Amino acid sequence: MKKNMLIAVVLFLSPFILPAQTTDYKVVFDLTSRDTLDHKSVIRWLNEVSRMNPEAKLEVVMYGQGFNMVTRDRSVVPDAIATLLNNKNISFKVCAIALKNNNVDKSQLLPGVETVPDGIYEIFSKQKEGWGYIKAVH
Amino acid sequence: MKKNMLIAVVLFLSPFILPAQTTDYKVVFDLTSRDTLDHKSVIRWLNEVSRMNPEAKLEVVMYGQGFNMVTRDRSVVPDAIATLLNNKNISFKVCAIALKNNNVDKSQLLPGVETVPDGIYEIFSKQKEGWGYIKAVH
Amino acid sequence: MKKNMLIAVVLFLSPFILPAQTTDYKVVFDLTSRDTLDHKSVIRWLNEVSRMNPEAKLEVVMYGQGFNMVTRDRSVVPDAIATLLNNKNISFKVCAIALKNNNVDKSQLLPGVETVPDGIYEIFSKQKEGWGYIKAVH
Repeated sequence: MKKNMLIAVVLFLSPFILPAQTTDYKVVFDLTSRDTLDHKSVIRWLNEVSRMNPEAKLEVVMYGQGFNMVTRDRSVVPDAIATLLNNKNISFKVCAIALKNNNVDKSQLLPGVETVPDGIYEIFSKQKEGWGYIKAVH
Repeated sequence: MKKNMLIAVVLFLSPFILPAQTTDYKVVFDLTSRDTLDHKSVIRWLNEVSRMNPEAKLEVVMYGQGFNMVTRDRSVVPDAIATLLNNKNISFKVCAIALKNNNVDKSQLLPGVETVPDGIYEIFSKQKEGWGYIKAVH
Repeated sequence: MKKNMLIAVVLFLSPFILPAQTTDYKVVFDLTSRDTLDHKSVIRWLNEVSRMNPEAKLEVVMYGQGFNMVTRDRSVVPDAIATLLNNKNISFKVCAIALKNNNVDKSQLLPGVETVPDGIYEIFSKQKEGWGYIKAVH
């Protein structure tokens, strides 16, 4: 009886006691910079995090001038992005408003790169769902 | 009768069917930069978000050198700020410590711009209340 | 007996039940910059916040090039860091991956500076625990 009680208490408290599971790793990166050093930094972080935690959910949201990282003729990291997109837990999402402001058509984006209607709302939504937030600027 | 029934069912289910309500959009922008390109960026984001979501709650907290965006003699966006402040869901708050550090008096701020005792605490409070966070830097 | 049991359970669970206390000021600063102006800014913010709120929990997580702020031969703020570390609520944590990438050994860090295996995970964890997040860039 006492043993059962102990088990019940431990089970009840386990969410507060047990360490974070390795799969509970969700981060949204906010990229607004056209600086290719920032592009290389965010790619390096994605590589490092996903190598150690293949189940980590990682999303890069680009607005402002961030789209430069994922357009065919301007990206300095197209191969790295193609490789990262082999991991279904990683996504790249560009703000449609930013594309329109800069006269960039969706067809100019690298394969696999998605668009969202509003990049800032996408980031807010992710934060609301418990994702971590990182401003990607070096 | 059937029509009324249908309307009733749709109304009842609407919270589960309709996309996220426009009113659940709350973001605090963190501005520490004196770079006028950053000032123009944050104003453009505020304009775009509020045009599509007039009910969105948006707040810009300025500390460090961010106050330059909202002082009478330095702001490059005074008219845009005046227009944005017509929306009661938008506010601009400057850190009183930053003003003191830079010998700027509250009277030098653009009309409608508020102060807070501690800009970092203001941002922490908003995050704690479930607001999204965006570092405003281009 | 039952009453004692109840009291014990309530006391044990109180950290999860009771409302936030006024000392509830917890912020993680994300520093990736090698720019000494950013280093001076984050130190100034730590000083100002901790002076007014000695109980505030403040942590600076450095990855990317942020480690430059806390290495013996490069830091421009070693004395300020030593003073801040007298407050047990303040900590400086460097990403071990960033150190390795830059061939910096832990022995080159200023006294009291800690390392974490993954700086981005450290920031995510803190955000998940309800800490505020500030990207430290001027």
